[in-house]
Amino acid sequence: MAVSTASREPSTLAAPVRTRARTALRPLAPGDAHISGGFWRTRQDRNRVDALAAGYEQLETSGTLDNFRIAAGTSTGHARGMIFQDSDVYKWLEAVAYEIGRAEDPVLRSRQQEVTALVAAAQQSDGYLNSVHQLRHGPEERYTDLAWNHELYCYGHLFQAAVAQARSTGETTLLDVSLRVLDHLVAVFGPGHHEGVPGHPEIEMALVELYRETGRNDALELARFFLDRRGHGYLSGLGHEPTYFSDRVPVREASTVEGHAVRALYLAAGATDLAIEDADTELLAHLRSVFATMLATKTYVTGGMGSRWAGEAYGDPYELSTDHGYAETCAGIAAVQWAWRLLLASGDEQYADLIERALFNAVLPGVSLGGTEFFYVNPLQLRSNAQVTGGTSAANGRRGWFQCACCPPNVMRTLSSLDQYVATSTDDGLQIHQFANGTYTAEVGSERLSVEITTDYPHDGRITLRVVEAPEVAASLSVRIPAWAGSALLDAGDGAQEVAGSGVQELDRQFRAGEEIVLDIDMTPRFVTAPHRVDASRGAVALERGPLVYAIEQADQEGPAVVDDALVDPSAPVVERPIDDLDGVVAVDLTGAAAAAPSAAAIDRSWPYSTWTPDPAPVTDHVWRAIPYFAWANRGAGPMRVWLPEISGSR
Amino acid sequence: MAVSTASREPSTLAAPVRTRARTALRPLAPGDAHISGGFWRTRQDRNRVDALAAGYEQLETSGTLDNFRIAAGTSTGHARGMIFQDSDVYKWLEAVAYEIGRAEDPVLRSRQQEVTALVAAAQQSDGYLNSVHQLRHGPEERYTDLAWNHELYCYGHLFQAAVAQARSTGETTLLDVSLRVLDHLVAVFGPGHHEGVPGHPEIEMALVELYRETGRNDALELARFFLDRRGHGYLSGLGHEPTYFSDRVPVREASTVEGHAVRALYLAAGATDLAIEDADTELLAHLRSVFATMLATKTYVTGGMGSRWAGEAYGDPYELSTDHGYAETCAGIAAVQWAWRLLLASGDEQYADLIERALFNAVLPGVSLGGTEFFYVNPLQLRSNAQVTGGTSAANGRRGWFQCACCPPNVMRTLSSLDQYVATSTDDGLQIHQFANGTYTAEVGSERLSVEITTDYPHDGRITLRVVEAPEVAASLSVRIPAWAGSALLDAGDGAQEVAGSGVQELDRQFRAGEEIVLDIDMTPRFVTAPHRVDASRGAVALERGPLVYAIEQADQEGPAVVDDALVDPSAPVVERPIDDLDGVVAVDLTGAAAAAPSAAAIDRSWPYSTWTPDPAPVTDHVWRAIPYFAWANRGAGPMRVWLPEISGSR
Repeated sequence: MAVSTASREPSTLAAPVRTRARTALRPLAPGDAHISGGFWRTRQDRNRVDALAAGYEQLETSGTLDNFRIAAGTSTGHARGMIFQDSDVYKWLEAVAYEIGRAEDPVLRSRQQEVTALVAAAQQSDGYLNSVHQLRHGPEERYTDLAWNHELYCYGHLFQAAVAQARSTGETTLLDVSLRVLDHLVAVFGPGHHEGVPGHPEIEMALVELYRETGRNDALELARFFLDRRGHGYLSGLGHEPTYFSDRVPVREASTVEGHAVRALYLAAGATDLAIEDADTELLAHLRSVFATMLATKTYVTGGMGSRWAGEAYGDPYELSTDHGYAETCAGIAAVQWAWRLLLASGDEQYADLIERALFNAVLPGVSLGGTEFFYVNPLQLRSNAQVTGGTSAANGRRGWFQCACCPPNVMRTLSSLDQYVATSTDDGLQIHQFANGTYTAEVGSERLSVEITTDYPHDGRITLRVVEAPEVAASLSVRIPAWAGSALLDAGDGAQEVAGSGVQELDRQFRAGEEIVLDIDMTPRFVTAPHRVDASRGAVALERGPLVYAIEQADQEGPAVVDDALVDPSAPVVERPIDDLDGVVAVDLTGAAAAAPSAAAIDRSWPYSTWTPDPAPVTDHVWRAIPYFAWANRGAGPMRVWLPEISGSR
Repeated sequence: MAVSTASREPSTLAAPVRTRARTALRPLAPGDAHISGGFWRTRQDRNRVDALAAGYEQLETSGTLDNFRIAAGTSTGHARGMIFQDSDVYKWLEAVAYEIGRAEDPVLRSRQQEVTALVAAAQQSDGYLNSVHQLRHGPEERYTDLAWNHELYCYGHLFQAAVAQARSTGETTLLDVSLRVLDHLVAVFGPGHHEGVPGHPEIEMALVELYRETGRNDALELARFFLDRRGHGYLSGLGHEPTYFSDRVPVREASTVEGHAVRALYLAAGATDLAIEDADTELLAHLRSVFATMLATKTYVTGGMGSRWAGEAYGDPYELSTDHGYAETCAGIAAVQWAWRLLLASGDEQYADLIERALFNAVLPGVSLGGTEFFYVNPLQLRSNAQVTGGTSAANGRRGWFQCACCPPNVMRTLSSLDQYVATSTDDGLQIHQFANGTYTAEVGSERLSVEITTDYPHDGRITLRVVEAPEVAASLSVRIPAWAGSALLDAGDGAQEVAGSGVQELDRQFRAGEEIVLDIDMTPRFVTAPHRVDASRGAVALERGPLVYAIEQADQEGPAVVDDALVDPSAPVVERPIDDLDGVVAVDLTGAAAAAPSAAAIDRSWPYSTWTPDPAPVTDHVWRAIPYFAWANRGAGPMRVWLPEISGSR
């Protein structure tokens, strides 16, 4: 289906976030960030080829596209699915836009145009657009249930897709739709008009981005209105209190993230966008403090966010259940989005550290190695005999789609735009935050500092930065030294020097094309522990190697012992074993023991709690094989655990 | 409001369960079980005087009574509250019936008659009765949403109240209402008719009890129908799968309790009733096996049931979160109900052990010492800075009533009928299962073996059984030796003898009125540990003293250290300190230390996971005071924890 489409410029891979106000760091210009190989490119290729095609089919079979057709009057029937189902289409369109920007593809282009036309046709004459709401409710019910009807949430995803489409593919059809929505919203919402706030934040950061792309100040003002109005207990219902909606206290007064994790993080990201554009240093400092508290008290070792199933929510401080945690894939993505904005605003590499951790260990586990199956929930443990209940339970294994399908297309757009999270620029140089093979270019005056990264990261710690283009003048090239690394060796042409672990290493000088700078990061596996208040991880260690959090999965173990009974000795040496399986990862063998599995007789004796006795002397006689957590459940969803009980102190 | 009421006999405190088929043990006859003093009588007095009065007010202010008035046409308006709100009235009526049986009271009698008349007036001419459904839905919608509309659940509570009323107060108005319902149900449900099953089990045990009281075989048949039809995935909806409803597999094939805990336990109790009346030894053996597996893998140290907030459900085996557990008060009550039926059927004292544990530590924490405020959820830990969200969260403290008010009147009827769980009879004697001051009588032939219990249990381990009446012939008197007791001393008149801990101690001989048998149970505090697969309790101990599980609560601690940072040394001696506070309990002082609370600087450094190092040598320099768990949150709902990290092996 070919449609005429408004357009303005050729395709190029552009950024989801392009600040207008001056920030510490700036996203690279369109076309100046390209992942071209290595670990992440493999993931991106499967996303581009397999996931986007599968997503298109899922949008069709789930009725999501039909909802638009029916709303437009070109088909008949009832709306199917969730009230926020339109957003699945928008996220998929956003991913497709980045991919067309990456490389032209007639099938993707045709599908983009077809789906965009469906969206445009469903828009009502006054600008309102929500296919499911249009089919299920009368116009008089618009915005009457902001807590649950998600109209503003869907607009947010529409705007983000529209901006991505305009920036990356040059087509402006979706942007035109969005501006008609914006005109409509500005007429409906605001002081003295409808003063409600969205049940699910998302539109805040999207409105700011729409302002950035179009210069429409009313978009920025509306975002500011939604942010300032929030936090006074407007939202509740269906058994949820304002906390669930991040509506208990205003953003400027909130001391911690709370409630529904994705809601809290999308709101925080939008607030950061506003702080940036308003040059609101007080708000920015407050958000940085909330982020720090979040990391210190409510973040899984994987970077995963939100431990409670009930309400898909953050728990109390240090409430980080490992055996029944939630850590929704979308929440990991949202954490990356927030951290990225804070990185741009502050230049503080701790945000890049979190982006790395979350991408590898909280987002990537959400998608199969094949690219087309997804986890909604990412617990750090799956037990033997786990109940297979609830469509989103990890015990089901990854699935192609969900009734609430927020995660799959969210992963798609994240992988498609990943190039943009690798590096940033300043007036005088380039900053490398992530280690992904490819070429990244900063404009230095009227010249260019362009660097090509080559590495087998995250499996190997050697990273080569080759200068491809260099300005005639002195410039700055900085690389993040990950906080998890005890130290690193940097060879900037004059021999390897040990550089401080954590933070940033900056080279300030004139560079020449062809020169190589080599960073060597120690990838020795390490055991880590949680703060003592994280009761769920007491007496246990997690294994990390490089940026990867590891897990032991039943599929890798020999013998009858199940991982439920694993005990490890963190003082014993470990053995690294590169394997071909799982797209090639480095497995790690751990020394430990297997506690006795509960016997049928013990179960028949019934009462399982017994009188305390001093720990027996530990005997290490078992080897447990660990693999990167992201790769688990690619051979069926069997027992798995990240936190490994220590052989001493265990019972 | 006085109404004429059908009646047949004078009042006497009768049993909720009276088997018809021959069982190993039998409930005592009406009037033959009376708690007359001590620990439980204090609780019962507050329940009778304060809770039942408060409950009556709550039923009025919540609109629950008005729903009946409006349905009867004697008032106008809309139905208020939950679709199952009628059941709150029935549970309260059941409690009132036992109390009138215990002692006549004109106010209670008048209120019973008033409320019973409201119920009777709302019944429709064909027997259907559900005030909320009648007001919200047309007759054509009856039984069209069995998963959620709870009509059969409400009937169950109606039948139980009716039986209690008939047995204990002699009034049969509610029984007449119930029999009209039964006629209606028999016409509607059954093979070839409506073949659905109830979304929330409850009616199964109630139908069996209605059969026991009236001899109506069709009640037993309908219970059998509901049980046999269940387990084929009929029930789902509102995001819940059949597992939630205990409808995934038939009862006879289920290997474990799963899904919504109260649903699972009410179903199991009903299945046990049926197994008893049908003399179905195979089903009974299967249920005993499921019970054993439940204890071994899915039961909190308190006897609490169901660890998941999402779905108020059992988790996977050994998934027993301590810092965010659920352990609904109703689920503790349901466990007592199931265990009681298994005790009657089998005579196995392990069920009395669980009844004791659950009553003291899973049911009693659900009500304030004052008797009028209730916990819905009973977590084993409340952190500092816990979110106060959700009406049922323990962080709110106990509340007078809830939007879903299942728990408060369930506690009321449990406390009112508690006398009946103390002792049983056989043809030749009396069995003492619980240690509550009072008089308990078994019929031995045409004679009586009557025993008066005097004790300060659960705070003291000395229990005196004085024979009040004795038959002329040899009889049997047995007492449970709690499984938690390492040993006990029994002085049956010939000096104290050590008797085996766990199980039953039986005396077979001729008794004489006035003789005393003294049981001395060692109440030395003891630390217990969980099975290693309970990851949530790893490296931690719980303190028990007698039948009571203990907790440390912030209110009892001196100095700034918070219980979140508690470490204890279970190898160190403890000190028992009887206190006047909390109605008089024995506090226990524990030796340990306080881990350093997280500093603001640590939070600002953000990433909280650190490289493993060997444990530092423990230094014990702090005393933590523990109190019985049931008594927590009677001085505000502050930080509290049951599981105490060991000073060694902690981090």
